[in-house]
Amino acid sequence: MRVGVPAEIKPGEHRVGLTPTAVREYVDRGHEVLVESGAGLGAGYNDEAFIRAGARIAPDADAVFQGSQLIIKVKEPQKVEWERLKPDHILFTYLHLAPDPAQTEGLLASGAAAIAYETVTDARGGLPLLAPMSEVAGRIAVFSAAETLLKHNGGMGLLLCGVPGVPPARVAVLGGGVVGMNAARMAMGLNAEVVVLERSIPRMRELDDIFMGRVLTRYSTLDAVEEEILKADVVIGAVLTAGAAAP
Amino acid sequence: MRVGVPAEIKPGEHRVGLTPTAVREYVDRGHEVLVESGAGLGAGYNDEAFIRAGARIAPDADAVFQGSQLIIKVKEPQKVEWERLKPDHILFTYLHLAPDPAQTEGLLASGAAAIAYETVTDARGGLPLLAPMSEVAGRIAVFSAAETLLKHNGGMGLLLCGVPGVPPARVAVLGGGVVGMNAARMAMGLNAEVVVLERSIPRMRELDDIFMGRVLTRYSTLDAVEEEILKADVVIGAVLTAGAAAP
Amino acid sequence: MRVGVPAEIKPGEHRVGLTPTAVREYVDRGHEVLVESGAGLGAGYNDEAFIRAGARIAPDADAVFQGSQLIIKVKEPQKVEWERLKPDHILFTYLHLAPDPAQTEGLLASGAAAIAYETVTDARGGLPLLAPMSEVAGRIAVFSAAETLLKHNGGMGLLLCGVPGVPPARVAVLGGGVVGMNAARMAMGLNAEVVVLERSIPRMRELDDIFMGRVLTRYSTLDAVEEEILKADVVIGAVLTAGAAAP
Amino acid sequence: MRVGVPAEIKPGEHRVGLTPTAVREYVDRGHEVLVESGAGLGAGYNDEAFIRAGARIAPDADAVFQGSQLIIKVKEPQKVEWERLKPDHILFTYLHLAPDPAQTEGLLASGAAAIAYETVTDARGGLPLLAPMSEVAGRIAVFSAAETLLKHNGGMGLLLCGVPGVPPARVAVLGGGVVGMNAARMAMGLNAEVVVLERSIPRMRELDDIFMGRVLTRYSTLDAVEEEILKADVVIGAVLTAGAAAP
Amino acid sequence: MRVGVPAEIKPGEHRVGLTPTAVREYVDRGHEVLVESGAGLGAGYNDEAFIRAGARIAPDADAVFQGSQLIIKVKEPQKVEWERLKPDHILFTYLHLAPDPAQTEGLLASGAAAIAYETVTDARGGLPLLAPMSEVAGRIAVFSAAETLLKHNGGMGLLLCGVPGVPPARVAVLGGGVVGMNAARMAMGLNAEVVVLERSIPRMRELDDIFMGRVLTRYSTLDAVEEEILKADVVIGAVLTAGAAAP
Amino acid sequence: MRVGVPAEIKPGEHRVGLTPTAVREYVDRGHEVLVESGAGLGAGYNDEAFIRAGARIAPDADAVFQGSQLIIKVKEPQKVEWERLKPDHILFTYLHLAPDPAQTEGLLASGAAAIAYETVTDARGGLPLLAPMSEVAGRIAVFSAAETLLKHNGGMGLLLCGVPGVPPARVAVLGGGVVGMNAARMAMGLNAEVVVLERSIPRMRELDDIFMGRVLTRYSTLDAVEEEILKADVVIGAVLTAGAAAP
Repeated sequence: MRVGVPAEIKPGEHRVGLTPTAVREYVDRGHEVLVESGAGLGAGYNDEAFIRAGARIAPDADAVFQGSQLIIKVKEPQKVEWERLKPDHILFTYLHLAPDPAQTEGLLASGAAAIAYETVTDARGGLPLLAPMSEVAGRIAVFSAAETLLKHNGGMGLLLCGVPGVPPARVAVLGGGVVGMNAARMAMGLNAEVVVLERSIPRMRELDDIFMGRVLTRYSTLDAVEEEILKADVVIGAVLTAGAAAP
Repeated sequence: MRVGVPAEIKPGEHRVGLTPTAVREYVDRGHEVLVESGAGLGAGYNDEAFIRAGARIAPDADAVFQGSQLIIKVKEPQKVEWERLKPDHILFTYLHLAPDPAQTEGLLASGAAAIAYETVTDARGGLPLLAPMSEVAGRIAVFSAAETLLKHNGGMGLLLCGVPGVPPARVAVLGGGVVGMNAARMAMGLNAEVVVLERSIPRMRELDDIFMGRVLTRYSTLDAVEEEILKADVVIGAVLTAGAAAP
Repeated sequence: MRVGVPAEIKPGEHRVGLTPTAVREYVDRGHEVLVESGAGLGAGYNDEAFIRAGARIAPDADAVFQGSQLIIKVKEPQKVEWERLKPDHILFTYLHLAPDPAQTEGLLASGAAAIAYETVTDARGGLPLLAPMSEVAGRIAVFSAAETLLKHNGGMGLLLCGVPGVPPARVAVLGGGVVGMNAARMAMGLNAEVVVLERSIPRMRELDDIFMGRVLTRYSTLDAVEEEILKADVVIGAVLTAGAAAP
Repeated sequence: MRVGVPAEIKPGEHRVGLTPTAVREYVDRGHEVLVESGAGLGAGYNDEAFIRAGARIAPDADAVFQGSQLIIKVKEPQKVEWERLKPDHILFTYLHLAPDPAQTEGLLASGAAAIAYETVTDARGGLPLLAPMSEVAGRIAVFSAAETLLKHNGGMGLLLCGVPGVPPARVAVLGGGVVGMNAARMAMGLNAEVVVLERSIPRMRELDDIFMGRVLTRYSTLDAVEEEILKADVVIGAVLTAGAAAP
Repeated sequence: MRVGVPAEIKPGEHRVGLTPTAVREYVDRGHEVLVESGAGLGAGYNDEAFIRAGARIAPDADAVFQGSQLIIKVKEPQKVEWERLKPDHILFTYLHLAPDPAQTEGLLASGAAAIAYETVTDARGGLPLLAPMSEVAGRIAVFSAAETLLKHNGGMGLLLCGVPGVPPARVAVLGGGVVGMNAARMAMGLNAEVVVLERSIPRMRELDDIFMGRVLTRYSTLDAVEEEILKADVVIGAVLTAGAAAP
Repeated sequence: MRVGVPAEIKPGEHRVGLTPTAVREYVDRGHEVLVESGAGLGAGYNDEAFIRAGARIAPDADAVFQGSQLIIKVKEPQKVEWERLKPDHILFTYLHLAPDPAQTEGLLASGAAAIAYETVTDARGGLPLLAPMSEVAGRIAVFSAAETLLKHNGGMGLLLCGVPGVPPARVAVLGGGVVGMNAARMAMGLNAEVVVLERSIPRMRELDDIFMGRVLTRYSTLDAVEEEILKADVVIGAVLTAGAAAP
């Protein structure tokens, strides 16, 4: 298959659809990969790195779209991108169509097949392409909270991890899914007192086995949420609202 | 040396000054050991076990005292015992003289050398013969507390260890010495939330290294003690009041 | 739906079908909850607590049964209770019908739909309403055993947790299901040497991953059971005999 | 003793010499405490909190200095402060005299006794009043590094903690003293690969016992430092340069 | 059923199809077991042990085959063995037919039902009779590697476990299945730096939960494999090539 | 100072007195280092590596001895070596004089100052140059035992680490010093059941804190040693007999 990787053009996006390492995997399996010149610069890869991995370099996005069947991106296509799509294109990227009717109509009009990373489900009903984003989010949440609590960052001057003689912060995590579990784990790693509020008892049992009681689990009732939020120094929201995920 | 082991006669005392295993160590180093017949029964050792270990059996306490230089006991001597002591006896046992002037005067009058286990100090100022009792006390405190909290034992119907979805009890340990550390460790092992209040910061640092943050440490001020006792479901007193230890 | 919570009347039962926290969840979802006056006292909740949670208080059990569609209890209905049931009632409680033909016939005669907590199964064949009772049972078993082993409780004078220099008790757990795993975990937490005997190798693999080898697992043959019971200081039975569970 | 707590006046300093909790300890032991009005506001304590703890409030710094024997501060005195000191004052605060001859001369001229927190040593040669600052510094270093590595903070776009399938950052800690050990512990808690370079083998043995091999230790030679810095994504300097500590 | 256990005859094989413990399980369930005299000697069991377990002893292999319906062995049958099989025999053993057409034809010609341990699958698609062999293999690989690295065994003179001040070896495990996970766990237990390369992200998530970040996981691309092999001191192959397993 | 490193000549010795990394440390502090050509080959360092580190290369041992004040070696000097020593030489190496009167007299006759690594003591009475050897010995003991227990190595066919369903070996470690603690730690890491026999209760307390009960400690009496050796599958001797250490 001919695979194309255009540069990301949404402001603030530094990632690229395929790294050179990923390109090499495609090429090794017999596919051709076409990368827009400079597409990897934001992520630290120059064209030479893609060439060494077996890709060819295209001078611009038009050349990538015209020369490829499968377009691999990170962010949802912008107007100039969906206008380049043809009926024989397959687009593979995050889409987040719910709040974006213009994009939805643009994609429909293009006739291309568009597959959203965030909706791919596996055999057990999991979201394999969303989960890594959830892991990242849950983990960052904790050390960013620790940083934010410091006085010089405008926080209340609290040390999330405590020191001997000074207890740590109490962190309440709302939801024990992928985000919540990863947040709980990092908060535990930074020595915080951690409580996870969750509605699934089997899931709490799993968390209890993994954390061996080092993280408290509490059945999430209205009473429990109110009490724990009042006791907590840090509250991390980790509930999946269907359709709203924005990695 | 001739070592004598009389049966303990204080009500409720089941222990014996030397077990057969300990007797064997003495005999192996060339000492003679004389054990009162039946002295080990409360601890599960019959005379035969002492004989196999190399002891001789004396028919009664009088014979033990008359045939020995070093008398090894568990509890402080009762009146009938201190009256058997002569000036060439060495008595080695718990004494707890402070609240017991009659015993004190009896020992002085006997002329014997009496060494109290609870006052033996080592090179670092520790109490090596008291510490094991403190370990035992700190450990038992926790599971006895867990048992006591149950409804059918007259408790408040709380499960110290919690279960997934139901947080465990909060255990406040006053003092981070040998008793406190052992209590904290068992409470942690039963999954409780544990806080140790302590006045020595270096000691809290040691506890923090040992427990890797799994047990909270808090500098013990009046404010801290008041707050933690109010938050706790179980309070374990683990402060050494000099002279008052009663193993 | 109209939900009714009568006071428990079986001797020795202190629990109540719904706590105020649970009542609030029902009310929040649009149900009406009717609680018998005083039903929560044994568990520490007065009528006022139920009212704050959104319940109404009924003066007696008759009023609860007459005013409700779904009756939520803890223990199996007593004669006076099943006689109050009508064909349009749903009864939700532990039933344990197997050894209790009188109750079985009473329920059949009432025409009510009776759902036993202990027989509710989930998608994986688990027993979600029995499992928490098993967790509680497995955990209590350990510290009650520790307490029972003490001399002053009539035990053999053994310290389950040991101390440095004195090895702990050896605990054999027959069965590695929910009860057994929870017992093993608490026994491990109290420092005991623990072996779990189990017939499912995949389950032993799970236990080995969770406990990282800190708990021994042994395939449960006749030979293994005989050997381990002889070596053990404490034996905890944790085998589910179908139909016999009595939380 | 009459103890005085003036407000801190060095820019950016939000702390206060004594918290209300500490005031209460002094008062409980029979001392009088005089706090400058508003001294605790930066740390979240109003005058009322100090009064409840037993302090009296002084209207300004002059009143505090005139009414006290022991002055307790956080930061080194500013010119206006050392000019208030008299020969019968004791000043207890961080001084950092080495780079600050003006302050040194001012203190000498005042005739007061000035004790620098950072130079107080304990019986083992440790620095008990500096160590907590070192603990704080070592712990903050890690989560601030994690935050700094993120792309949106101008970092290289690296997740210190990794996620499954993506290894974490490698953190090299130069020095295994209080700062280094605390940094290593937090980095380990955030899942990083951590190596501590240290010149004392007994200290590395202690770290190895505490971290059970989870943190690598490496004897700090020129070769080792060069190699590890090149392999590391994060380098944390944790070497005490005598006299240079600036908490 | 009549169960027969012939002695293993393949050179170097010391095991036996059933141990006395296993025999007892069969007999307890009402089966008859016939064991060839001397079959257990290589594994440390004499005939008497089998008799105590309830087996009868047959003088030779012919008698075992003639007197049994189900033949239980360890290794694939040798020519003399498959020639003893009749159409009403069931043979249960490792077969490894792929590279062994002579055996395959011999078994087909015999008319017996032959079930290979290595192909039995469970409800989840696992290989329950192969997995224990994989566990053994993965675990042994690590300490045999440690032994092999020593100078006096012809290795490079590297201590897999390191000591304080000298980092341990880096162990790369190719594949995170049963073999790989067991190898990683033992390598971790010996203090090594461990990285597991694996293609399944959900599996790496499981490993990350089990090892709590103590073992690195890395998505297995060509780049990753090349880099990790170059960095590693020990490489453990743990990839299942379908049909090639040879326990 | 002029430092000389001759090649080791005792059969079977592959080490070298200084590695290039160590040479660089000497040179950086202003010393001159003279290395015999080829001295590092057994340990994997060629002359070029020493030159890069700042050493000069001497053609033979005579040149090294003649050009140096401090001779740094690994093994005790052989006859040809001690004959090269002059009164102004300092020799720094392992000596093990006790069983070796010829060497002792040779060294005395040479007039050189000879310092044995194995007798250097630190401020606490420890043996800092012997301890790393003890760590190495204690760690190797465990995986070499694991390897030795395998059938194909002539062992009893026991898997030290066990697998789920098959308990691991029981390892008794005689002595809880540096060797014993390191052996216990590795045996624990390989999942064995481990008991350490030790005579110092404070030391057992330290081990108990470090291993958190994962390793059993038992006071070492004659009874205890006999019982534990009979129960053990592996016995590791880790008692320091003064003067007998042979690294």
